[in-house]
Amino acid sequence: MFDYKNIKNEQLQSFLKGTMSETLGMEIVELGPNYLSMRMPVDHRTIQPLGILNGGASLALAETVASYAGNILVRKDNKHCVGIDINGNHLKSVRSGFVTAKASPIHVGKRTQVWNIDITDEENDLVCKARMTLLVIENK
Amino acid sequence: MFDYKNIKNEQLQSFLKGTMSETLGMEIVELGPNYLSMRMPVDHRTIQPLGILNGGASLALAETVASYAGNILVRKDNKHCVGIDINGNHLKSVRSGFVTAKASPIHVGKRTQVWNIDITDEENDLVCKARMTLLVIENK
Amino acid sequence: MFDYKNIKNEQLQSFLKGTMSETLGMEIVELGPNYLSMRMPVDHRTIQPLGILNGGASLALAETVASYAGNILVRKDNKHCVGIDINGNHLKSVRSGFVTAKASPIHVGKRTQVWNIDITDEENDLVCKARMTLLVIENK
Amino acid sequence: MFDYKNIKNEQLQSFLKGTMSETLGMEIVELGPNYLSMRMPVDHRTIQPLGILNGGASLALAETVASYAGNILVRKDNKHCVGIDINGNHLKSVRSGFVTAKASPIHVGKRTQVWNIDITDEENDLVCKARMTLLVIENK
Repeated sequence: MFDYKNIKNEQLQSFLKGTMSETLGMEIVELGPNYLSMRMPVDHRTIQPLGILNGGASLALAETVASYAGNILVRKDNKHCVGIDINGNHLKSVRSGFVTAKASPIHVGKRTQVWNIDITDEENDLVCKARMTLLVIENK
Repeated sequence: MFDYKNIKNEQLQSFLKGTMSETLGMEIVELGPNYLSMRMPVDHRTIQPLGILNGGASLALAETVASYAGNILVRKDNKHCVGIDINGNHLKSVRSGFVTAKASPIHVGKRTQVWNIDITDEENDLVCKARMTLLVIENK
Repeated sequence: MFDYKNIKNEQLQSFLKGTMSETLGMEIVELGPNYLSMRMPVDHRTIQPLGILNGGASLALAETVASYAGNILVRKDNKHCVGIDINGNHLKSVRSGFVTAKASPIHVGKRTQVWNIDITDEENDLVCKARMTLLVIENK
Repeated sequence: MFDYKNIKNEQLQSFLKGTMSETLGMEIVELGPNYLSMRMPVDHRTIQPLGILNGGASLALAETVASYAGNILVRKDNKHCVGIDINGNHLKSVRSGFVTAKASPIHVGKRTQVWNIDITDEENDLVCKARMTLLVIENK
């Protein structure tokens, strides 16, 4: 699915300079044959007042990784993706370390894509499960 | 619903120091009789690579304002709220200025709360519509 | 928005013959200037084992009314709508009578539409709040 | 997880008499060690006006199977589950035969449960993917 042997993390990371992803400390972990994963620190940049990961930061990560994955997939066809909607369930609270989000395709259509995003902590427990719908648009 | 005449913005804002909200530039706008609104800048802190507001930043804001509102509502009863799930539709892209999120209650129950969050831009157009479910828990 | 003065309930109802809507007892209530409402009985056709309205019946009604509304809106342009995704929160249980769903547009775009659906009982209390995303497609 | 060797399909099916499930033709397929599956016909009971499965019927099935699974899981502890919210993406249209929904747990907590529901057609293609949140309540 992905041309993952020819796309380097540094390339993918470089597009995130000067964006929300950089602000929150998000980093590309791995582009695999059929997934993209990114991680995010649980620290002052991403916590809420009680000192645990803000669920909104999980959604920010989920949306970023799914949108990025969708766009990587269609750019060779001179298309791009825009996010239509997203939903997520919060399953575990996290106080430190990194969380990692892995986006995997549920549906890759001509007009829409649907992605599953699993966010896990360093003990590999599920922190958040999200699903995102993208609209595929031809570049002008 | 809210004791809004006796709660000052500075108080509410002070709890957000050293958290994701501060990182992304979120500010309390107003606690009203039955709503809480916060705003967030559209700049390097919140955009995605194409220069528009990252939809994930919208969700981060939506989750923050709804969770905060729910917690303000129950803390006098020695309870707190945790986010269970959230969903949002992206409706318009934004390139600059501020977006403002207003959280209004759909359902305030003993066990759960459900909030609507409307995020609008400076032209008052709807940018994102979200719904969040909170679980109400007694403090130990 | 809708040509509601020239579209009769009987016309709208007639399309539902021999479908799930008829099976569950759904009826057109009113096509207004900017909404469509339908009602559904709470009886053996729609309850779950405890004798209350099956939340799944609420979703079935919500999806039906929003999809119908979206299709009414675009058919004059030789287009049709298909449902991409839906979400709903259950807020109150109902044991008898009718529930009424009202679909109102949140966003009417060229490529997508987003609808809010409020389902209320005979006391006008909110039973379910749903949001549905439709894809707009040109007829061939 | 489930005491699946001692619970018979006929028992599970018998609770659905005189409910929406019977109206729409839903049948228990299998209670496994960690899942419950049910099927539903695609016919006049479940289609929309264009002759394809009404997406709302998919949601009705998804909600039924997840709620049933959650309740089976907690009844030995003198508890029951109520549906808080559900979401689903529609991925493929179906014109005939049966669709089968399989509910698998994402999270089984003391206060809440979260279930994934995959609905597939007779070619084993994914028709709908849904996620449901249940609240766990002690019986009085």
